[in-house]
Amino acid sequence: TPSDRDGHSSTQSSHRLLAYSDALISIIATVMILPVAHTKIQEDEELTESLQQLISTKVAVYLMTFLIVTVAWAAHIRLFQVIEHIDDCLALLNLACMMLITFLPYTFSLMATFPENTLGILLFCTCVIVIGMIQAIIVVYGFSRPFLLNEQIQMSENPAFYKWHILKVISKVPVLCMLAVIFSFIFSPVSYVLLAIVIFLRYISLSARWCYGKATGRLEEPADSMVFYTYHPDEPLSKERVEAFSDGVYAIVATLLILDICEDNVPDPKVVQEKFSGSLVDALKEFGPEFLAYFGSFATVGLLWFVHHSLFLHVTRATHLMGLFNTFSLAFVGGLPLAYQLTHEFARNSRNELEAIQISCVIIFFAGLFQLAIWVTALFGERSALHPYVRFAGRDHAFMFAKLALYPCVALGTFVLTCVLSRFSAPIFHLMEITVPFVFLLLRLLVSAGLSLLRRLLSSIRRAMR
Amino acid sequence: TPSDRDGHSSTQSSHRLLAYSDALISIIATVMILPVAHTKIQEDEELTESLQQLISTKVAVYLMTFLIVTVAWAAHIRLFQVIEHIDDCLALLNLACMMLITFLPYTFSLMATFPENTLGILLFCTCVIVIGMIQAIIVVYGFSRPFLLNEQIQMSENPAFYKWHILKVISKVPVLCMLAVIFSFIFSPVSYVLLAIVIFLRYISLSARWCYGKATGRLEEPADSMVFYTYHPDEPLSKERVEAFSDGVYAIVATLLILDICEDNVPDPKVVQEKFSGSLVDALKEFGPEFLAYFGSFATVGLLWFVHHSLFLHVTRATHLMGLFNTFSLAFVGGLPLAYQLTHEFARNSRNELEAIQISCVIIFFAGLFQLAIWVTALFGERSALHPYVRFAGRDHAFMFAKLALYPCVALGTFVLTCVLSRFSAPIFHLMEITVPFVFLLLRLLVSAGLSLLRRLLSSIRRAMR
Repeated sequence: TPSDRDGHSSTQSSHRLLAYSDALISIIATVMILPVAHTKIQEDEELTESLQQLISTKVAVYLMTFLIVTVAWAAHIRLFQVIEHIDDCLALLNLACMMLITFLPYTFSLMATFPENTLGILLFCTCVIVIGMIQAIIVVYGFSRPFLLNEQIQMSENPAFYKWHILKVISKVPVLCMLAVIFSFIFSPVSYVLLAIVIFLRYISLSARWCYGKATGRLEEPADSMVFYTYHPDEPLSKERVEAFSDGVYAIVATLLILDICEDNVPDPKVVQEKFSGSLVDALKEFGPEFLAYFGSFATVGLLWFVHHSLFLHVTRATHLMGLFNTFSLAFVGGLPLAYQLTHEFARNSRNELEAIQISCVIIFFAGLFQLAIWVTALFGERSALHPYVRFAGRDHAFMFAKLALYPCVALGTFVLTCVLSRFSAPIFHLMEITVPFVFLLLRLLVSAGLSLLRRLLSSIRRAMR
Repeated sequence: TPSDRDGHSSTQSSHRLLAYSDALISIIATVMILPVAHTKIQEDEELTESLQQLISTKVAVYLMTFLIVTVAWAAHIRLFQVIEHIDDCLALLNLACMMLITFLPYTFSLMATFPENTLGILLFCTCVIVIGMIQAIIVVYGFSRPFLLNEQIQMSENPAFYKWHILKVISKVPVLCMLAVIFSFIFSPVSYVLLAIVIFLRYISLSARWCYGKATGRLEEPADSMVFYTYHPDEPLSKERVEAFSDGVYAIVATLLILDICEDNVPDPKVVQEKFSGSLVDALKEFGPEFLAYFGSFATVGLLWFVHHSLFLHVTRATHLMGLFNTFSLAFVGGLPLAYQLTHEFARNSRNELEAIQISCVIIFFAGLFQLAIWVTALFGERSALHPYVRFAGRDHAFMFAKLALYPCVALGTFVLTCVLSRFSAPIFHLMEITVPFVFLLLRLLVSAGLSLLRRLLSSIRRAMR
């Protein structure tokens, strides 16, 4: 469109660059789930303590890298809210930045595997510092060509103020990492504390501010953040980019199991000839559980995406707290395929199988619960974050609530049932997998029926009261 | 936005659904490259004939599944050009359709591995037929709720005509597959011919029509296709969706190597203690070649994305032929990480290393050449497909041409150089990897300098002529 080229012939809209960056970052955020997935587990064997420890370490590394990458992603959003147009030079600098972000999971897992070795912490911090430097270059370059900037900053009287402000915001994390590098030579525990601050600072300050806001009754954001809407450090996240990032995570997680199936589960012709006397059907039957796991995980991830999609149709503005809950929800979604895979790797009715099924329920429960939390935050925290027709009680409101509450309720129910009827845990779980998609298809009908039932009940009570 | 809800409270814009579908389909299209990537190759050994055959089979399976998935993707585009709004039911049906598309690569590779077994062909065709049935249900559902349809069809006098037309278009491939199933019981070679027709028919008819158009001088599309712009079977592809699909492929291909690095190349603490006497640096040095390969492939894929991005900024409308060249370019891009990985797996100066480097050059060459072909098609075939300022000679035109021609030229040059100086092939290749990003950074300067040089040359010639 001609608007891509307003002002300067080499200026481009940053839309596609950001979409590509979101796709890259969402893949990188979920990459550390693969080492968890491919941990070899002996069948029919109780999980030994050492193996349990190994898996929990890997899960911890996965969750931490997910958070780290989302911190980098949040910084990327902020940067490109200031710089709204790009040229070739910025596109190339951004690619360099992306490449360094892809190293974050690797260097972090080096650090986690060799905690007493300073090399891990050194590499990780170098990555973060170089990313910060490239982002600083992008800012300086952008401010030297004002037509690339956000319009509000372009028209402001004192752009240098914003330049220093955004540079200060961007340099916070690299400076902390620089300190961590220095301390790693002197007294390494301090550097780990510093890195923990880097990762959690945003979340702690966010929760603290939210609690403080609740306590003092200041529900609305300060007025100046509304004026300086798009570049202020406290500005809400870009809704589009939250959606793009979430789509990427859901897409890669949904296909995680089929990647393995396509690679490993095409039987070898020789094996089929020797072991199954040429019967391909028998050979494929062996892989039945894998396909069932794939079906279950794709359906669950797909439906959670569907709920997310419905939710964000009604959201007008994504705040930081909503972004936080979204990140947590996505981190749990990332673990889903593995949990489903585990449910089929163990012998029937073994303790491991029951545990795997219950873990799956817990993961679904939390993934769904954090989605519900996004909605609740939007409902209560920020009046401007939702469309009015879902905010106020009514049919749309009830329908949205039913959609969001379905998975947490089902997961909780399945969990309780498997505790009570532990012998039938696998059939219960599979029944749940198959039923839920149909419940979603009929949800609108069910909610309508439920509402009319409720209305009739209420009116009959009222009549009885009279 | 309020426009999401025009007409009916449950109607939604299909934008995000399509973005998510594009992300899923692009991952599925590239999945069969993984079995090629993970083929074990003994070091220092000439590639034996059987291994070469195995790899070429796997590469063929990759290319075929890539084409099959893009055929399914093209059908998906056509379907959602007719149905422009969605509701919950359509979103869920689309998810079911996506799940079946993810099985296409697997069933196809089963068919390729067991060509004499009818089960493979049966499963593949069942998949295709069920996808077709779900799409037919989507069409019937959409036409039963006209507010979901494309506005032009909504306003037309005879929507039933369009309904049967689109159903006919959609059912073509499933009917061919049905015939293939029937013939697989009678005489199986016929069914393979039918499947080949399914995959290539679109391309053959497209090229034939293009050649015919060239021969008879009918450069413009027939007038009626311009009137019925968005739902006609000959309509151009949706530019947005071509971009989204390409972004997905570039993103997953760029990160393909880091997935392996994150998983396999974190050294085991015990091994480091025993083999490298506790020195992590020595242990990591072992992985040096992997990191170099990752750097090279990420940079090349990223820069090819950059060229693609620049090209599509100038494209106003994607025609089928451009989509075809784009698919070919992406299929070559998918092979890049492997080619780069291979360049470092063999001993220095072995014949295998030279071959791997030359294969990398060939892949880069074709990936770039097909991008150039997209531009040339847009330039000559369809006057309305490009912005005027790149279409006509001038600074932007020269700059775009330089961008597109850079990779093919560099790849060709490197190929020729490695043939002549085969002893220095590895250093030449690495030098190319490092230089190209900087050339891109300075390209605008170089083109300006080149143009002014040319102009001076021309004017001095003209003066000499006078």
